[in-house]
Amino acid sequence: MQLDHIGIAVADLEAANQLIARLLGREQYKIEAVEEQGALTSFFSAGEGHAAKIELVASEKSGSPIDKFVQKRGPGLHHLAFEVKDIRAEMKRLAADGFELLQDEPRRGADNKLICFLHPKSTNGVLVEICQSIRDDAE
Amino acid sequence: MQLDHIGIAVADLEAANQLIARLLGREQYKIEAVEEQGALTSFFSAGEGHAAKIELVASEKSGSPIDKFVQKRGPGLHHLAFEVKDIRAEMKRLAADGFELLQDEPRRGADNKLICFLHPKSTNGVLVEICQSIRDDAE
Repeated sequence: MQLDHIGIAVADLEAANQLIARLLGREQYKIEAVEEQGALTSFFSAGEGHAAKIELVASEKSGSPIDKFVQKRGPGLHHLAFEVKDIRAEMKRLAADGFELLQDEPRRGADNKLICFLHPKSTNGVLVEICQSIRDDAE
Repeated sequence: MQLDHIGIAVADLEAANQLIARLLGREQYKIEAVEEQGALTSFFSAGEGHAAKIELVASEKSGSPIDKFVQKRGPGLHHLAFEVKDIRAEMKRLAADGFELLQDEPRRGADNKLICFLHPKSTNGVLVEICQSIRDDAE
């Protein structure tokens, strides 16, 4: 599996977009709502000619997972996402190896992907997402 | 600046190495002590043909920054590191733009790099490291 993006929870997407743009020296390249998760996301390239991305995630709905995270721990590093070729096969492999999946079936995430999260208690405290581009699915 | 690595704080490096190897499907490629920070680190590739790395960091000294972090928050995502060409110039740029640096002078980090951290309160709760390969310095 290949690092796809780093998710950062933010309280105010517009303020965070400006801050991260000043830090990295480049602007976000897209903003996308993820209705299923009550979230608004923005994406930055993590480097030139580089596959990985930084995803800022803000809650748009009180009680959403990101809202709860920010209320409890404040804005900050939220998850690591890894691209896999076959998300269902990977979910099966990880579950058989003792990792705790947070979903039985992949969900629709941002950036045109199917996603599934692993519980941080089975991954050294790191919320891990595995994701598969939906285009791959149709091929 | 370019994503260089993601730092993950761990309580037990050997156990975490085994866990992350099972997750990613590959082993760490090196283990390195960072005496200045009382830490022991291991490195995984974050993807094939991919520049970014995952750095696991365990404390080797009671009261070290990683020890304090793990005591307070538990193991988990710790910092993001970005490679820059000229760390002193970048430190000057960031300080002038209102980011709070945790060091006045670059320190020696793992992986043959000069490093400087930015305070999470100026970076949306994310501990950010900027780093410069020491080889670049000598060129």
